[in-house]
Amino acid sequence: MKTTEQPTSMDKRTAFLQYMSLRRKEVEAFLWSLLPQPDGMAAKLNEAMRYPLEAGGKRIRPILVLMGLDFCRDVGWREALAGKSWDGVEADLQEAAMRAACAIEVVHTYSLIHDDLPCMDDDDLRRGRPTSHKVYGEALAVLSADALHTLGFQMISSSAERCALPCFHAIRELAVACGYPGMVAGQVVDLEYENKPGTEEVLEYIHLHKTAKLIRAGLLMGAQMAEANERDYALLEEAGYKLGLIFQVVDDILDVVGDTQVMGKQAGSDEASHKLTYPALIGLEKSRERAAVLRNEILSVLRPEGDRAEFLIQMTEWLLERNA
Amino acid sequence: MKTTEQPTSMDKRTAFLQYMSLRRKEVEAFLWSLLPQPDGMAAKLNEAMRYPLEAGGKRIRPILVLMGLDFCRDVGWREALAGKSWDGVEADLQEAAMRAACAIEVVHTYSLIHDDLPCMDDDDLRRGRPTSHKVYGEALAVLSADALHTLGFQMISSSAERCALPCFHAIRELAVACGYPGMVAGQVVDLEYENKPGTEEVLEYIHLHKTAKLIRAGLLMGAQMAEANERDYALLEEAGYKLGLIFQVVDDILDVVGDTQVMGKQAGSDEASHKLTYPALIGLEKSRERAAVLRNEILSVLRPEGDRAEFLIQMTEWLLERNA
Repeated sequence: MKTTEQPTSMDKRTAFLQYMSLRRKEVEAFLWSLLPQPDGMAAKLNEAMRYPLEAGGKRIRPILVLMGLDFCRDVGWREALAGKSWDGVEADLQEAAMRAACAIEVVHTYSLIHDDLPCMDDDDLRRGRPTSHKVYGEALAVLSADALHTLGFQMISSSAERCALPCFHAIRELAVACGYPGMVAGQVVDLEYENKPGTEEVLEYIHLHKTAKLIRAGLLMGAQMAEANERDYALLEEAGYKLGLIFQVVDDILDVVGDTQVMGKQAGSDEASHKLTYPALIGLEKSRERAAVLRNEILSVLRPEGDRAEFLIQMTEWLLERNA
Repeated sequence: MKTTEQPTSMDKRTAFLQYMSLRRKEVEAFLWSLLPQPDGMAAKLNEAMRYPLEAGGKRIRPILVLMGLDFCRDVGWREALAGKSWDGVEADLQEAAMRAACAIEVVHTYSLIHDDLPCMDDDDLRRGRPTSHKVYGEALAVLSADALHTLGFQMISSSAERCALPCFHAIRELAVACGYPGMVAGQVVDLEYENKPGTEEVLEYIHLHKTAKLIRAGLLMGAQMAEANERDYALLEEAGYKLGLIFQVVDDILDVVGDTQVMGKQAGSDEASHKLTYPALIGLEKSRERAAVLRNEILSVLRPEGDRAEFLIQMTEWLLERNA
């Protein structure tokens, strides 16, 4: 007879998917409350800011903020699923954490709009809908992304004054990850190596900077909101870094084997624009091996942490297996 | 016989210009120390970030941060000129204030790069040199501006932890002023009303949002770093708002009567792109009257404040009389 104390991996996966769905709704509801309404003289700007966020998305980065917070507060996965993550967290800090979660999502969204511009990757399709510049023209696409970029920092810095210290640290995490030491550098080198032979070293640089640092920043912003100890912070740094790399390796693989309909963006676009990717450099099979090695490394760090790490482990598996 | 206790207005102007020159050098030295060196894989990005800042500029916004700080700390103009602004300010807060000053300059610079893009104002010349996209191409121009935008928030949030509270507030001032409630909204409406009849109400909206809010944010960031009282904060809010409007009215006038060589940007470009400006809407003479009225309003607020307001008064006169 099966006991409820020892859930199977399938139970955990079901629990994780349920948790993801709950948190996604929570983040989205809060996000809509923080986004400007399309009225007044700049109504069109506000509309263009909402458009790419209304297209949905997995909301991985904001959920990682909340997971990082849960992890550092030693919240087990059963408690997290039962909505007990916030137990004992004062209302102001709850709101500040939700603001941090929404902030990383709008900053991520700004970067997608700029990446899709004609002068960058020139993409027409994103999350199954025409890209921002296709709908609003280039000028408003650039400006609405700029507005989302700033909004991320406005969101966190508009938290209650008593949360100033964790917010101050979370703002730095976000800025370092998305600025010249992180995401933008990755995008610059990515563009530079289109049509140019690259090495694994270059590719690792691109993946780490363009994607992994912002994914990791999600967990680290959560750690900052929890005022984490050094050990937990270092642990999330390592796990977040590798989770981010898995995310990008899988992204590269999906661009080769994925389905445009399912992904909501054009499959094969990396090859068409001669992007430097893992499949292009070392082939599909070795790319999959690379992702599997990263997974094992993450699991060896997280497994000893017990229940509080369970959903991060599930997140790792889920990102590895995703088809969109 | 003239006494040294009653300086003439010419003395004050000379003192102001000397102060401006000293503070400009101070800000620039600190700015260079915070900007990334062009090395590593993203060297080109770092070079493109430095380029528009190396072109010089009046550094009005960062100096306003320092003036706002001086004002709220009751530092008289003689003390400010003698370099006594920092007396009694602990080293960490001095650095944080300089970081805030540099932050508003890099954010202002990001906005100029995006404004000059072909899909916006399509300008070839800025501060006497080719615009960023002319030198680095559109993709790197967009991305280097994005990097400067984030860098502003990184700069302030990298201050010492003990300054977290004033930095938290200064970050919000900057974000609200340059984001959707401010600068970006102004740029969107500005672009919308090219080739379209506008009213004074629309024009006021554009000036207030596109320019005045960021100018005002300089003073308010200084006030936040000084942990100003409500009265001083409100006073700088009003003066900053009107100072920003003067700046933009004079900008519009200079675009008509100014010299391309002296300004380092193309004169007549507003008319060529059918921009909504004061001279276009109400004529040159009435535009000058508008600026003079704003000046008188600022002076009536600042004069009762005595010595601590003197350099802000000089700044008002100087911005009104500038020819570049």
